[in-house]
Amino acid sequence: MTYDFQVFKGSPTGEIFQSKTQRPKVTRDEVLLDITHSGVCGTDEHFKWVDMGLGHEGVGIVKEIGPEVKTLKIGDRVGWGYVVETCGVCNQCVQGNMVYCTGGKKEYGVGNTDQGSFGSGAVWREQSLFKVPDGLASDVAAPLMCAGVTVWAALARHGLKPTDVVGVVGIGGLGHLAIQFAAKMGCEVVALSGTEEKRNEAFELGAHHFVATKGVKELSVPRKIDHLLVTTSKMPDWAQYDSILAPMATNYPLTITDFEAKLEIPFMSFLLQGRKFIGSTVPPKIVYKQMLEFAALHGVKPIIEKFPMTREGVIESMKRLDEGKIRYRAVLYAEGA
Amino acid sequence: MTYDFQVFKGSPTGEIFQSKTQRPKVTRDEVLLDITHSGVCGTDEHFKWVDMGLGHEGVGIVKEIGPEVKTLKIGDRVGWGYVVETCGVCNQCVQGNMVYCTGGKKEYGVGNTDQGSFGSGAVWREQSLFKVPDGLASDVAAPLMCAGVTVWAALARHGLKPTDVVGVVGIGGLGHLAIQFAAKMGCEVVALSGTEEKRNEAFELGAHHFVATKGVKELSVPRKIDHLLVTTSKMPDWAQYDSILAPMATNYPLTITDFEAKLEIPFMSFLLQGRKFIGSTVPPKIVYKQMLEFAALHGVKPIIEKFPMTREGVIESMKRLDEGKIRYRAVLYAEGA
Repeated sequence: MTYDFQVFKGSPTGEIFQSKTQRPKVTRDEVLLDITHSGVCGTDEHFKWVDMGLGHEGVGIVKEIGPEVKTLKIGDRVGWGYVVETCGVCNQCVQGNMVYCTGGKKEYGVGNTDQGSFGSGAVWREQSLFKVPDGLASDVAAPLMCAGVTVWAALARHGLKPTDVVGVVGIGGLGHLAIQFAAKMGCEVVALSGTEEKRNEAFELGAHHFVATKGVKELSVPRKIDHLLVTTSKMPDWAQYDSILAPMATNYPLTITDFEAKLEIPFMSFLLQGRKFIGSTVPPKIVYKQMLEFAALHGVKPIIEKFPMTREGVIESMKRLDEGKIRYRAVLYAEGA
Repeated sequence: MTYDFQVFKGSPTGEIFQSKTQRPKVTRDEVLLDITHSGVCGTDEHFKWVDMGLGHEGVGIVKEIGPEVKTLKIGDRVGWGYVVETCGVCNQCVQGNMVYCTGGKKEYGVGNTDQGSFGSGAVWREQSLFKVPDGLASDVAAPLMCAGVTVWAALARHGLKPTDVVGVVGIGGLGHLAIQFAAKMGCEVVALSGTEEKRNEAFELGAHHFVATKGVKELSVPRKIDHLLVTTSKMPDWAQYDSILAPMATNYPLTITDFEAKLEIPFMSFLLQGRKFIGSTVPPKIVYKQMLEFAALHGVKPIIEKFPMTREGVIESMKRLDEGKIRYRAVLYAEGA
């Protein structure tokens, strides 16, 4: 017995293809899903040039489970992100740090490239699936699987306190979630954007202050920022933030996609002001779960634009994302979902 | 009534002068000291071009106290570092973060430039003085006031655990103390030096491994490093350490003196390996005290070369420091001390 799914794949020319994947019956801890939703992320744009199943912000319904699955049952709603398989026994895995697994980690683009979250179904191991809490709709849960958890990890894992001031640079797929999470954590939130365009939306998302940065010589804020999340795709001029950061402020460059780039940090203010720079990616599974529960409890949800889970829908959503037009996260949905 | 001290000053030509400073009788929380010892630090080299009292790693004996002094009495041995006066009431001071005081901080080179630790006496406020524990000799206590506390702050304030692996780059005034402290904290210690020259000394200081780095393409260590203290004066090539750092490793550039420099960090490994870079300077007073007590308890002590507290002694010690010949910290001592 086998399963057939529809998948949407990239290709060396950047064209998106609809294709079929076949998987054998689930064994051991494998879970078969019907995909209902997928977020569309900037990382997908990079992989559209590769012949592989696209999408890594998935939500679906459990359709079948292998005999060793312990925490999921048929009918459960689950999501997954870009890390999809880890060894479970290396020094990093035993600490829960799945993203740093050294024992043959499989993640988006590496392993299991015959499937993704752009498609009709997938088979994943139980370890990589997160139960979606009842209070959280599947369409808004999907973007939390990568965009949401990326900003959450920065906010939740490095000593942030509810009395801290949080700055969010860039109001997009990640930034608009960071503003909501930080505000619900009790923090004073400063939204920073190039232009005035998103001022009102920033306040609606929960920001307490808004700063338009383009062409401003000396930025200023009412209270200086303790944690600065940078969610733009280009490396910023870090010196620009010197005037608005508190002593010992922590900086998180989250979404810079130019990997050849260097982090170029002015050294004097770094040393004398006790700055921190932290590379933060996806957290242990327990932190994922806490994020989903926090979002459900506090009504944190991505603002989404929906597209059908079809070849046309995939193409159109990726085109609008590439053009910077999505407000604030594109989500593909299966027919009837 | 006034006090006269001998002081040793820099000058615009870089020449060292012996001079006299006069201070009025101590009032309020002021403390008059007879200086017995002073460490000689790289920072003193910068200020020898300025007409000011040199030295900021002082130890002396309390000679007189103002009427408001609460914790010190005549005869006590005390030390001080480069922060000598803070407002006590700003947001940073109330957290103990004296080095980030925004209310008119005075530190080495800024305020009180008529005196320093190169001299016969000084008047400081009680707030900036640290009692030297009984088990710690004054000559070895002096270098702990800046070199010691600088490496201690990195080791003590950012989540280091006794089970972590600590790397120390550069075996000099700071590095040789970092190796001792980290070893006594229970950590596995990797000493990294350009050449093989200091291999044996590194082991004697407590290092478990030694790595000569010059010209080595791919560095390797038995267990990867969780905390890397860089105590060289030049900015290193951070990419060189990629192969020896554990996931989420923290890097502390402690003593780079080229302030025009930028920290240039390869971004891909920074982000994907979850690296941290922390600007660490001197810690709150309580952390200073813990450092001194730890050093006394565990017999951590700088290896010193002693010079008399005379114009000749100052000149000779600074010359040898400038030439990189000091093993590992120069200390000036008063006659009879």
